Amino acid sequence: MTLTHPLDHGDGDDKLHEECGVFGIIGGPDASAATALGLHALQHRGQEAVGITSWDGSEFFTRRALGHVAENFSTAESLAELPGHMAAGHVRYSTTGGAGLRNVQPLYADLASGGFAVAHNGNISNAMQLRQELVQKGSIFQSTSDTEVIIHLVATSRYPTMLDKLVDALRMVEGAYALIVMTPRGMAACRDPMGIRPLVMGKLGDATVFASETVALDVVGAEFTRQVEPGEFIEVDFDGTIRSHRPFGDVQARPCIFEHVYFSRPDSVFNKRSVYDSRKNIGMELAREAPCEADLVVPVPDSGVPAAIGFAQESGIPFELGIIRSHYVGRTFIQPSDASRHAGVKRKHNANRAIVEGKRIVLIDDSIVRGTTSMKIVQIMRDAGAAEVHFRVASPPTGHGCYYGVDTPERSKLLAGRMDLEAMREFIKADSLAFVSIDGLYRAVGLPGRDKACPQYCDACFTGEYPTPLTDLADRKAKDAQLTFPVNEDA
Amino acid sequence: MTLTHPLDHGDGDDKLHEECGVFGIIGGPDASAATALGLHALQHRGQEAVGITSWDGSEFFTRRALGHVAENFSTAESLAELPGHMAAGHVRYSTTGGAGLRNVQPLYADLASGGFAVAHNGNISNAMQLRQELVQKGSIFQSTSDTEVIIHLVATSRYPTMLDKLVDALRMVEGAYALIVMTPRGMAACRDPMGIRPLVMGKLGDATVFASETVALDVVGAEFTRQVEPGEFIEVDFDGTIRSHRPFGDVQARPCIFEHVYFSRPDSVFNKRSVYDSRKNIGMELAREAPCEADLVVPVPDSGVPAAIGFAQESGIPFELGIIRSHYVGRTFIQPSDASRHAGVKRKHNANRAIVEGKRIVLIDDSIVRGTTSMKIVQIMRDAGAAEVHFRVASPPTGHGCYYGVDTPERSKLLAGRMDLEAMREFIKADSLAFVSIDGLYRAVGLPGRDKACPQYCDACFTGEYPTPLTDLADRKAKDAQLTFPVNEDA
Amino acid sequence: MTLTHPLDHGDGDDKLHEECGVFGIIGGPDASAATALGLHALQHRGQEAVGITSWDGSEFFTRRALGHVAENFSTAESLAELPGHMAAGHVRYSTTGGAGLRNVQPLYADLASGGFAVAHNGNISNAMQLRQELVQKGSIFQSTSDTEVIIHLVATSRYPTMLDKLVDALRMVEGAYALIVMTPRGMAACRDPMGIRPLVMGKLGDATVFASETVALDVVGAEFTRQVEPGEFIEVDFDGTIRSHRPFGDVQARPCIFEHVYFSRPDSVFNKRSVYDSRKNIGMELAREAPCEADLVVPVPDSGVPAAIGFAQESGIPFELGIIRSHYVGRTFIQPSDASRHAGVKRKHNANRAIVEGKRIVLIDDSIVRGTTSMKIVQIMRDAGAAEVHFRVASPPTGHGCYYGVDTPERSKLLAGRMDLEAMREFIKADSLAFVSIDGLYRAVGLPGRDKACPQYCDACFTGEYPTPLTDLADRKAKDAQLTFPVNEDA
Amino acid sequence: MTLTHPLDHGDGDDKLHEECGVFGIIGGPDASAATALGLHALQHRGQEAVGITSWDGSEFFTRRALGHVAENFSTAESLAELPGHMAAGHVRYSTTGGAGLRNVQPLYADLASGGFAVAHNGNISNAMQLRQELVQKGSIFQSTSDTEVIIHLVATSRYPTMLDKLVDALRMVEGAYALIVMTPRGMAACRDPMGIRPLVMGKLGDATVFASETVALDVVGAEFTRQVEPGEFIEVDFDGTIRSHRPFGDVQARPCIFEHVYFSRPDSVFNKRSVYDSRKNIGMELAREAPCEADLVVPVPDSGVPAAIGFAQESGIPFELGIIRSHYVGRTFIQPSDASRHAGVKRKHNANRAIVEGKRIVLIDDSIVRGTTSMKIVQIMRDAGAAEVHFRVASPPTGHGCYYGVDTPERSKLLAGRMDLEAMREFIKADSLAFVSIDGLYRAVGLPGRDKACPQYCDACFTGEYPTPLTDLADRKAKDAQLTFPVNEDA
Repeated sequence: MTLTHPLDHGDGDDKLHEECGVFGIIGGPDASAATALGLHALQHRGQEAVGITSWDGSEFFTRRALGHVAENFSTAESLAELPGHMAAGHVRYSTTGGAGLRNVQPLYADLASGGFAVAHNGNISNAMQLRQELVQKGSIFQSTSDTEVIIHLVATSRYPTMLDKLVDALRMVEGAYALIVMTPRGMAACRDPMGIRPLVMGKLGDATVFASETVALDVVGAEFTRQVEPGEFIEVDFDGTIRSHRPFGDVQARPCIFEHVYFSRPDSVFNKRSVYDSRKNIGMELAREAPCEADLVVPVPDSGVPAAIGFAQESGIPFELGIIRSHYVGRTFIQPSDASRHAGVKRKHNANRAIVEGKRIVLIDDSIVRGTTSMKIVQIMRDAGAAEVHFRVASPPTGHGCYYGVDTPERSKLLAGRMDLEAMREFIKADSLAFVSIDGLYRAVGLPGRDKACPQYCDACFTGEYPTPLTDLADRKAKDAQLTFPVNEDA
Repeated sequence: MTLTHPLDHGDGDDKLHEECGVFGIIGGPDASAATALGLHALQHRGQEAVGITSWDGSEFFTRRALGHVAENFSTAESLAELPGHMAAGHVRYSTTGGAGLRNVQPLYADLASGGFAVAHNGNISNAMQLRQELVQKGSIFQSTSDTEVIIHLVATSRYPTMLDKLVDALRMVEGAYALIVMTPRGMAACRDPMGIRPLVMGKLGDATVFASETVALDVVGAEFTRQVEPGEFIEVDFDGTIRSHRPFGDVQARPCIFEHVYFSRPDSVFNKRSVYDSRKNIGMELAREAPCEADLVVPVPDSGVPAAIGFAQESGIPFELGIIRSHYVGRTFIQPSDASRHAGVKRKHNANRAIVEGKRIVLIDDSIVRGTTSMKIVQIMRDAGAAEVHFRVASPPTGHGCYYGVDTPERSKLLAGRMDLEAMREFIKADSLAFVSIDGLYRAVGLPGRDKACPQYCDACFTGEYPTPLTDLADRKAKDAQLTFPVNEDA
Repeated sequence: MTLTHPLDHGDGDDKLHEECGVFGIIGGPDASAATALGLHALQHRGQEAVGITSWDGSEFFTRRALGHVAENFSTAESLAELPGHMAAGHVRYSTTGGAGLRNVQPLYADLASGGFAVAHNGNISNAMQLRQELVQKGSIFQSTSDTEVIIHLVATSRYPTMLDKLVDALRMVEGAYALIVMTPRGMAACRDPMGIRPLVMGKLGDATVFASETVALDVVGAEFTRQVEPGEFIEVDFDGTIRSHRPFGDVQARPCIFEHVYFSRPDSVFNKRSVYDSRKNIGMELAREAPCEADLVVPVPDSGVPAAIGFAQESGIPFELGIIRSHYVGRTFIQPSDASRHAGVKRKHNANRAIVEGKRIVLIDDSIVRGTTSMKIVQIMRDAGAAEVHFRVASPPTGHGCYYGVDTPERSKLLAGRMDLEAMREFIKADSLAFVSIDGLYRAVGLPGRDKACPQYCDACFTGEYPTPLTDLADRKAKDAQLTFPVNEDA
Repeated sequence: MTLTHPLDHGDGDDKLHEECGVFGIIGGPDASAATALGLHALQHRGQEAVGITSWDGSEFFTRRALGHVAENFSTAESLAELPGHMAAGHVRYSTTGGAGLRNVQPLYADLASGGFAVAHNGNISNAMQLRQELVQKGSIFQSTSDTEVIIHLVATSRYPTMLDKLVDALRMVEGAYALIVMTPRGMAACRDPMGIRPLVMGKLGDATVFASETVALDVVGAEFTRQVEPGEFIEVDFDGTIRSHRPFGDVQARPCIFEHVYFSRPDSVFNKRSVYDSRKNIGMELAREAPCEADLVVPVPDSGVPAAIGFAQESGIPFELGIIRSHYVGRTFIQPSDASRHAGVKRKHNANRAIVEGKRIVLIDDSIVRGTTSMKIVQIMRDAGAAEVHFRVASPPTGHGCYYGVDTPERSKLLAGRMDLEAMREFIKADSLAFVSIDGLYRAVGLPGRDKACPQYCDACFTGEYPTPLTDLADRKAKDAQLTFPVNEDA
């Protein structure tokens, strides 16, 4: 069953989006071929651009492209440009800033110590401040990417070794990052002190592999070793030696809980738990927390399917495909003017009228962001003759923006940022609406509940409690305040 | 849930493939925009090429392209080249013969009576013979398409009216066809006497719409009126007048039963029945005919899902997503040499190990063609730790080729064409294997069973009983026989 | 010195243009490579599109492209698609009708007798009439090219042999043509009865070569044998046998005199005379017929150079490069609004101020068509400080359109079609203006003068005396007359 | 007459090549349109890549492309991306290093003081040394261009104003440069202390224009004001204020004499002299220094034409076009295996046999670099039946490489670097060979002769006397020496 999330150019799919996936491999032949395949398995984490950098023992090679991995890195010719036993790559959700390929990662620089390539998943929340300081001293930036800040910090660090330079740089940096770094001496992988963004490690023959999700290890045929721990910095040499460092000391880990809700593929293992299981559990929690009399449980395809199976199993209401999703989504089409309302959504989601007609339906979706798609899907069900439409959401209301590498609309566009539950129900025109509770969500991922004093996950998009300072945002608000513009009070 | 079948360049998906989908509309504004949207909804019937022809009251306009509808016909610019109130289009599975765009339909010709455009789903089984006769008399062919034969028959017909010319031409033709024809006087739609290929009619405001499947009517916002009956020839004028003719007299209808099994989308209505219902029923028949002790029912995504739901409901065994399918299939990737076996399949289908490990699995797929994918999927389940793997197939064994517009491997490559049941089980390495019976299939589509004397559907791919003569095939065999090559005894 | 005429997209170069060049070779290896090189040497005869067809002993292969030969047929890959020992190709000035590649030659058809490919330089002046008759009988046309008429006439001819069929077809045809035809039995080349368009024959090792001009023979390294005579039909077999036929009987030859004036390259030999010599002779005639007191003879580059050398030698006035032409002409540029007048022309022709300033100039150009460029060039000379500007033209006034394969503006846009000599001088603002006389032109090509009763060349563009009927034009005028529109009285 | 030098992909044209042309304009509307047109007029100085940067009062915009100006900057769309009243651009001969567009100028950087764009013609001969020092301190380079060194020197300069920073940077730099710089405060233009590379200034309405050659002023319709003097640094503000600085004190100017011989267009004025006149004078000097009995003076097109006219006028031998050059040069073609020798050259230069046959020929070319083309052209003349072939060269023997922005083969590939006069004559197989003397060349450009103590031009390619140190070259030789490889003793 297709549970990954396809690219939705043009008409949006009303979801939060991971901004990146990373993959790296050192010590095996065909490193770039493995990287292409691994990135392909991470394609759901970023569909706009892709890049791979390899090292052949004497030189670095890079290819970047807009579009999917399969379109750009599946031929022998494209991979022949990327020789060597070490490679790393990156898929990217958006290419903001119109800078074309310059923002596409891995980023690369010739430093005094030799080549330096980096692939970064996350977001540095004091990047603007650091950039201004660097430019003042004479650094010249090639891109608008926050990742480039790390490179210039390394280039200008006074420490002698590459490890020291990089740790020196990361100590100045605030926010979320999972990094894969390549130098002529080997590969390094690290996660920010709280481990907000995911990173795992595996073994493929003699080679060491790093990836955002375990599914990438599966697809290249590698064995899953363990996750890179929050705050861990791992070095791998060409002779296979692996050294682990903890340069940031002890910090309470707070990985992103939305990886369980939506970002990761259901066949991945995140933070030591099956993602599919977590999602089914959320559906079961929902069935207990917000039960409902109905004839059919209908998932909003594809992301609502595991929770719908959980809901159906817990409630005993049959699971049916009341909505059929087309594989062939893509660009927005020109609408013929006579076509009925909602053709745009139907193009993607069509009602299975024979099943739906005259029935009471429980619709299950993973989350509600802007609410526009939810509204249309409720309408599609009613147009197809559904007697009642009850909406159940497999996450708490998403009321706050993310500043850690996830593409979120501003708070005023988030349905839960501007409405209460009843207003939301009214907006999407469902007969009833319920979200899983925040504690229900923590239970579904195997915890007794949310530890309010010291939450076990980053759940800022639900709670507004950000685990790090947000320096650039504060600067911007300060500046906006001087201009006496009204300020968005997210943080 | 995604139940349409995506394009699988390069590594094949081991399915039978419909070769075409057609769509036409007359009498409304933005005819080409509606056609683009309708073809997009029929994209699962043909992914290699697409064409649209429109008529603006004085001229015909045509655009053809390789690739998907969304890539080629979603912009205002592309549609601006196709003005007018009448348009028809075609999606095509394969572009055999390397003839580039010349074989892409609609085909168009300037006849003495004016322009003539035709979109054809099906296959003319005496096309080679007719072509030779036409060339002998001086006709010059532009393409290798069997459809062009129809145009030349019309061009050289001595009858006075276009209707007469076209009926004259179709009387010489043998095989399967669903046709949409445009002339400066209006649109015509017809199905071959047995109605082997599907065609339905709908209403969008004042406009009349024809399409291969009802889902295309849904997506453009049209209302489903009725199917075009087998042997029916419908003319629609620009003033909206609709005339129905039955030029071929009374013939027993025999529509293609594989539309229920796999070709049509589950949200379509074919031959007056819900396709989704038919597939669930087949799963239920299977659970009764070939029950099995197991812990989980796992569909082979995406086509096995409805039958798996039926099987699970009938058997009481829980339905679980034990295999996750990637959205991002596409070209074959270069395999890194160290990667384990089956990476190619994993790229598309990955085991959900957390669910599968240690469990007895019933795998449900819609059909087995060559068996190669089935074998790999069984192996993937075992690699993920499944205790037992039972395989159930929601159609009878596919042992015979189709000559009516479906892309089938030759008999010697069909698993059921060269093996008995036990050999097939051995080949795919399942613990048990069962197919639904031919009568079970007929029951699932609402009949008491197959009428042996006078079958209600074309089921030649299962039974080898072809409802029409196969002239070109017989000619080829005769010629091969003279060369004393061994002959495949399909028919 | 560059004396060929470059492509001038966009801003026109105010010249008449040959519409085609053809090249064919039979009997040698690498036939398509030789054809590509030969067409490249004929590129000045057509820059918009190019096509090559080859025959490898069992199949015909064709590649067509928009643009130059060098862009499309210079790689090993492109030529590998065109195997075999026989090939023919075509360069084309314009791709009228927007039919994309369908009008690009060689045209090809599968006839009952086998494949048939044709490359045609010229224009059939009763093509519309013949086409209507053919369509009436059931022929379907693929292109809007007049050449396709010939193919359908061959396809429907009742004669038994290919030679007879083709002669049968050509007897129905009126106008100008130089044809190269390929069939599975060999190559044929022929010129219309008056030989209006050129065609020559050569030898390259064992191979026989045909081309529009001798320069193509030079460039491929072939030896010039002789011209194909007006009305001659030559067949060449694969064993090298050459047969000459004269199916049209005796007709007075009238080749196009403008080949001497401008169309052919100066290093070609046309109608048994050096083209460069003819052009120098015209310059000498001009110096005698229209002498002038001046300091410098300045050619309008590049086509005016040989006549300017002749004028300078005859008059004793020094030849100087007072105008410099850029190699990098091409698309029209957006003009910056502040730029002075005539920047568009300057981009192509810039005055050499240091030479021109204060001097009396004789400008020499090959012809005047619309007069717009001539006017600008006179102005450029004055802007650069020329004291006097005298204009001398190396052809008589061009007052009539060509219907034999040359792209001419309609009569009302030809400067000589709407003005007398003094008005033309006024229009281009020269101090004096003179054209060579029609008898002077005939003297320059080695004749005592024009034979009024029976002219030795086609000179209709100067005299309005067309050597053939112009059926389609007469039909169009008859139809226009019914509509009571005023009619252009060209013929 | 076409006297600019076209691009010769693939088969080389055996010439020295200017590596760049620059153009800038400040203070007028449509600045980028004027820049495109100006660069088009400088296209002969660089054909591989082109870039334009503009400033619209608040932002810089840049477009870079491979290929010609006309292909990339002639449409309204392309220029709409480059708004504003200030723009500068660059054409480039080669894109060494495979760095794609990253080396294409103008280069741009965001400095602490704001945006900074630079277009550079020339070569910095200590760039490697400076680059190493900068990287050591933490600078990150984006390109392999020597120009980027200037930007980093500016970025890291401690001086307060942009003028001071730039002068500070240029004082560290050694070699040849003509620079156009843009900042948010205006435009600056400067030439290295000896003025090796050219730069001129003009006026277009209220706007100030800078360009490599006067022909670019002509083509945009600007008036030539004066040259930027060697060592001069000119600042232009948005209010039109022009300030001239001489930051490098008094140095003897030594502009490149090869601009007169070949680089500049004949219609340009360089170092206060008409280039066309200089070339004709060289031809006259040659006729005096190395007279010869012959029937015809034949230029090697196109660059030999002015000298040939001078030679013909001085000697009284008639000037004739004995070689015809095709406009349609381009990629190398696949040679048909049977084609005679030299087809590659003939494709470009074809003998005008009718003129040449039986005659004694004086061939005139501007220079001999490797000698390979000269050899082939002599052979073409003999193949066409020339009785004698005498070769006269309008420059002294080119025996030394250039390190100031001109693409030269290494000394061992220069014909004059490895042979004496008689050996060269033997190599090209001419009946006689002569070069103009170095003093003859100086006389032709209006001087009494070469001042040995203090030469008035840079003529290092002829004399090996380099006017600046060549630090990077010395470093490379030192390193090579350690490896005990034999070293080329150019300097």
